[in-house]
Amino acid sequence: MSVRIYFDNASTTPLLPEVFNYMHEVNSLIYGNPSSIHFFGRQAKIIVEDARKILAEGLGASTGEIFFTSGATEANNMALYCSVRDLGIQTIISTKIEHHCNLHMFDYLEANNLASIKYLNVNNEGHIDYDQLDEILCQNNDNVMVSLMHGNNEIGTLNDMERLAEICHNHNVMLHMDSAQTIGKMPIDLSDEKVAFISGSAHKFHGPKGVGFIYINNNNLIKPLFHGGDQERGMRSGTENISGIAGMAKAFELASSEMEDRTKILSELRQYFVQQLQDNFEDIIINGSSSSFLPNILSVSFPPSENVDMLMMNLDISGICASSGSACSSGVENDSHVLEEIGHDPKRKTVRFSFSHLNTKKEVDYVISKLHKLTPERIS
Amino acid sequence: MSVRIYFDNASTTPLLPEVFNYMHEVNSLIYGNPSSIHFFGRQAKIIVEDARKILAEGLGASTGEIFFTSGATEANNMALYCSVRDLGIQTIISTKIEHHCNLHMFDYLEANNLASIKYLNVNNEGHIDYDQLDEILCQNNDNVMVSLMHGNNEIGTLNDMERLAEICHNHNVMLHMDSAQTIGKMPIDLSDEKVAFISGSAHKFHGPKGVGFIYINNNNLIKPLFHGGDQERGMRSGTENISGIAGMAKAFELASSEMEDRTKILSELRQYFVQQLQDNFEDIIINGSSSSFLPNILSVSFPPSENVDMLMMNLDISGICASSGSACSSGVENDSHVLEEIGHDPKRKTVRFSFSHLNTKKEVDYVISKLHKLTPERIS
Repeated sequence: MSVRIYFDNASTTPLLPEVFNYMHEVNSLIYGNPSSIHFFGRQAKIIVEDARKILAEGLGASTGEIFFTSGATEANNMALYCSVRDLGIQTIISTKIEHHCNLHMFDYLEANNLASIKYLNVNNEGHIDYDQLDEILCQNNDNVMVSLMHGNNEIGTLNDMERLAEICHNHNVMLHMDSAQTIGKMPIDLSDEKVAFISGSAHKFHGPKGVGFIYINNNNLIKPLFHGGDQERGMRSGTENISGIAGMAKAFELASSEMEDRTKILSELRQYFVQQLQDNFEDIIINGSSSSFLPNILSVSFPPSENVDMLMMNLDISGICASSGSACSSGVENDSHVLEEIGHDPKRKTVRFSFSHLNTKKEVDYVISKLHKLTPERIS
Repeated sequence: MSVRIYFDNASTTPLLPEVFNYMHEVNSLIYGNPSSIHFFGRQAKIIVEDARKILAEGLGASTGEIFFTSGATEANNMALYCSVRDLGIQTIISTKIEHHCNLHMFDYLEANNLASIKYLNVNNEGHIDYDQLDEILCQNNDNVMVSLMHGNNEIGTLNDMERLAEICHNHNVMLHMDSAQTIGKMPIDLSDEKVAFISGSAHKFHGPKGVGFIYINNNNLIKPLFHGGDQERGMRSGTENISGIAGMAKAFELASSEMEDRTKILSELRQYFVQQLQDNFEDIIINGSSSSFLPNILSVSFPPSENVDMLMMNLDISGICASSGSACSSGVENDSHVLEEIGHDPKRKTVRFSFSHLNTKKEVDYVISKLHKLTPERIS
């Protein structure tokens, strides 16, 4: 078999064997509907509620604050749309470097005159200006919420959840954080009740695709996005994805208990990769924050040249799977709204390499060796 | 191990080994994101598109008309909400015996003055009056759609999709059919383009939970319910549930190819069960249609007595899993809105036994023997 290196873990991650085996077990043994009151139903209910407990405990939340969804897209749509519809939110403060599931919801809310959006400045590292946020919140008389991603999916820049929670708490406004990229990678503690909503997708932390969750702080009682059988205590109707929920909880449990080790592996891998790039290639730019970033995301930009135009395709042909930005589009290589916003030179070519703890330095070496052939701007 | 008989297949069904194995294979081999343009992404994309093709071909639809969702609840919510929001629907014609995911959406639309709902009469078998529908459509000047379930989940009564499609087509109004209970059990042919929307949930036909689909006729271009990464050609954002989608397609394929055999097994099982009940117990009523019904649903009502009050619990203790109505609620035994609507005497006790082709006559015998002990109203 030819070489295949998967450096696109910010897009999605492989299932871990433990997760796979647990889902397999659940799928072969448990098939009741958790809403059924009989034996098979109760069996399924236990799986769902155990999973909820694992997530709640790991996030410092109560079990009543965790609701299972089909993923982070649904969760973020719920947080934003339902807050506007049910809690009288008139203005959302965010940035232009959010994930499309939030940006496109902003567009929808504005286009339909349901809410107005204020976009904070971001600097060339993708950081917001916390003072600007504070200032806007001081001046604002609308019913406001702040919506920011915890870790940026393209460049890895982190927002300080604690600091944001404090600012929002002081101004008595809700904070929604899209934490799809950070769940299972960063410790998140919601126990002080200062964050209104966070979201997660299992497939970003080695769990299954098609399942996620929303944390809804007990103080912010939105109404559901779906109407139906009143599952999830009325908040999210539809028969529960039992094995998916079970797999997500298992993946979350593993990610939490191994967080320190994984972070070490990822940080070393990233550092090694950066060093190799800087040692071997001229005019390399590492996009994103130099101070606060996700250890699994390395967004690197190469100077313009004929060769780099075909870089993504040639990497793919060489068996290296990386991304030019986010994966959430129609399978075409689009210009990145994030890179544009942080002032990235559009003539340069950016590749996002994103790792998991399963990747190795040997794989980095292979990528570097291939890049030697694919970009002529190497240091001679 | 003690006896466990699963007669609650209208609530949810066990995964078939073939489905389980295929999902297992996909889960172990394919982990790319279908939106990624590299090798791993393309692998995943192929799984999704192959699944779409299987569903489309089986339903007489084009692949562009099938969109994957988290289940039928989401699909039905989409059909109803988005038709009102995007296609100017002012009035929905339906009945009061629909599934809660439709009824609760009707309530939402009415409560928010988004649409008005007209409820058709249903007779004591759960059948609508087709002439009444035709009449209402003749008189109506609003922008109308008709929304009816294909097969009722509690009593099994079938609506005639072809006849409804014809009526709606003649009046130039859209028809939405919640086909969660009939997908994989009845032949459905959408090729004449007269049905606007149908919905399905994989777990109702031995596929996985947490995945379903909506058929959206090419002529009715609603906008999406979710906003995000523009997956599913922009109609349904969120990373695709690859193994779930694969499992659904496999389950659908099996259900389609085995439909005749399964229907025979189910019909015989139901007939045998009815005969046994009538031979052994007094004052038994079979709820629902006597002419057009799902072969897997048997809703039977017992005369009032002290014993039948505890019937569901005692069946459960005896290892028999059945339902008092639909499973889609908060795990409590509620009065059924369907039974109420068809004029069922609330003092009588209804049990819904629902089968799959995996059930046997021996299991029916066991249930009858247990019922002998649990209900004293037997024929002596």
